[in-house]
Amino acid sequence: MTGSGTDRTRPAVQAAAPIVILVEPQLAENIGMCARAMANFGLSEMRLVAPRDGWPSGGGLKKGATAAASGATHILENARLFASAAEAVADLNHVLATTARERGQMKRVLTPAEAMPEVAGRVGGGERVGILFGRERIGLTNEEISLADAILTFPVNPAFASLNLAQAVLLNGYEWFKTTGGEPPFRENNPSPPAKREMILSMFDYLESELDLCGFFPPGKKPVMTANLRDILHRLDMTEQEARTLRGVFKSLVEGPKKARLLARQAGEPEQSED
Amino acid sequence: MTGSGTDRTRPAVQAAAPIVILVEPQLAENIGMCARAMANFGLSEMRLVAPRDGWPSGGGLKKGATAAASGATHILENARLFASAAEAVADLNHVLATTARERGQMKRVLTPAEAMPEVAGRVGGGERVGILFGRERIGLTNEEISLADAILTFPVNPAFASLNLAQAVLLNGYEWFKTTGGEPPFRENNPSPPAKREMILSMFDYLESELDLCGFFPPGKKPVMTANLRDILHRLDMTEQEARTLRGVFKSLVEGPKKARLLARQAGEPEQSED
Repeated sequence: MTGSGTDRTRPAVQAAAPIVILVEPQLAENIGMCARAMANFGLSEMRLVAPRDGWPSGGGLKKGATAAASGATHILENARLFASAAEAVADLNHVLATTARERGQMKRVLTPAEAMPEVAGRVGGGERVGILFGRERIGLTNEEISLADAILTFPVNPAFASLNLAQAVLLNGYEWFKTTGGEPPFRENNPSPPAKREMILSMFDYLESELDLCGFFPPGKKPVMTANLRDILHRLDMTEQEARTLRGVFKSLVEGPKKARLLARQAGEPEQSED
Repeated sequence: MTGSGTDRTRPAVQAAAPIVILVEPQLAENIGMCARAMANFGLSEMRLVAPRDGWPSGGGLKKGATAAASGATHILENARLFASAAEAVADLNHVLATTARERGQMKRVLTPAEAMPEVAGRVGGGERVGILFGRERIGLTNEEISLADAILTFPVNPAFASLNLAQAVLLNGYEWFKTTGGEPPFRENNPSPPAKREMILSMFDYLESELDLCGFFPPGKKPVMTANLRDILHRLDMTEQEARTLRGVFKSLVEGPKKARLLARQAGEPEQSED
């Protein structure tokens, strides 16, 4: 998967969306990768709570983050800095907290796929919704999780539940984008309409009559062999263009040897094969 | 999101699953991150087609990949090497190719969420299914995509469609895990059952009678104010434990001042507040 699918002539998705809040992220590269994952799915507002190495604290951090963001620099440039998670959520209406382990809090526990329809309803109704993501190694503290209305967790292999920070952001963005009607960048490229049945049946008739002339069907076997052959070819679910192509293939196989012999005779060459 | 959710006492998910085929991956770190994403969602078989720097070509590459794999080393150790994509899919029954841009091929185009139910059916029926992922910058060639039965693409922001290689692997693994019944590692932690209505109504009666004694309701306003208050508190959708806690809070507010005054009188101290 590469940048080759990015179409800069198409407008960026910039509608209201959940806010991604990274609490004490340790690595600039991870902040950049989160920005990239956000851009992939139309999230644009990032908040940073006390990043370990400051923000922006000079070329080093910004640069590492910018490289990892792969072009999602508008998100990094607009990221707002807060001293605590409580301050980062103060102006929000609804808050979700991500965690990979149970915290014994009496909150609803949702997967991103379950949470995003409700989040979309709230955002659509004008609410500001934030999602808290914890530190790379130790996640969110219980006090930070207490700030939230509900817990977000991921369906993962319980024997290997460690998700990278940017991947946790990615899965939420992905479900957000799916929930809000996000479509893949392209669909089937079939300019030709599906073939009508009569076109297919006419091709079958042609093929079977030619096979008959070739002595393909052993005595008494034609009905069952014809049925089997039709079963195979029906499965192709062809477009009109494909049905024409396939008929052309059969016709060429039938007529080609005849035509080749005719051309050879006209040129006075000896025939390549016996009649 | 951190390793803190990983429970090594729980069995690794090791059932039959799709095979991840990385075609000419450039960076060892990306190979490692793909292995980690696979492990998160129960995928275990990786194939590498001509990795740029060889495999294993010495400590450098293996080490970079191993660090990024965050413990998913069993996947790297068992990864098989092939010279071409055609060789890597030779023993498979069904092949999907990922791409972020249209290739003009007459193939079905599916999102991971659309593809995985069919993939699960095939894998469950004993088929070997592979998913091809292209080079970091330029993806798969058209010839490599021709090897596939269908195209996989992602619903992404068209103005920012560039997915990192490991994230493309992650989204497929995530949808695979969801489709095959993957559950989050924990759910709500509510040992207490939901409160029965009579418990809630009894609490309301208690609260309203005490508020009446305090002169809370202006003349004639009690019915409408009571209804509003009940609307607010019903929304809590309490467990039995929570209903008991909240009743205790009201009771303490009612009795606390009385009790404090009583205790103060017993101790011969002057009262803190007027009656």
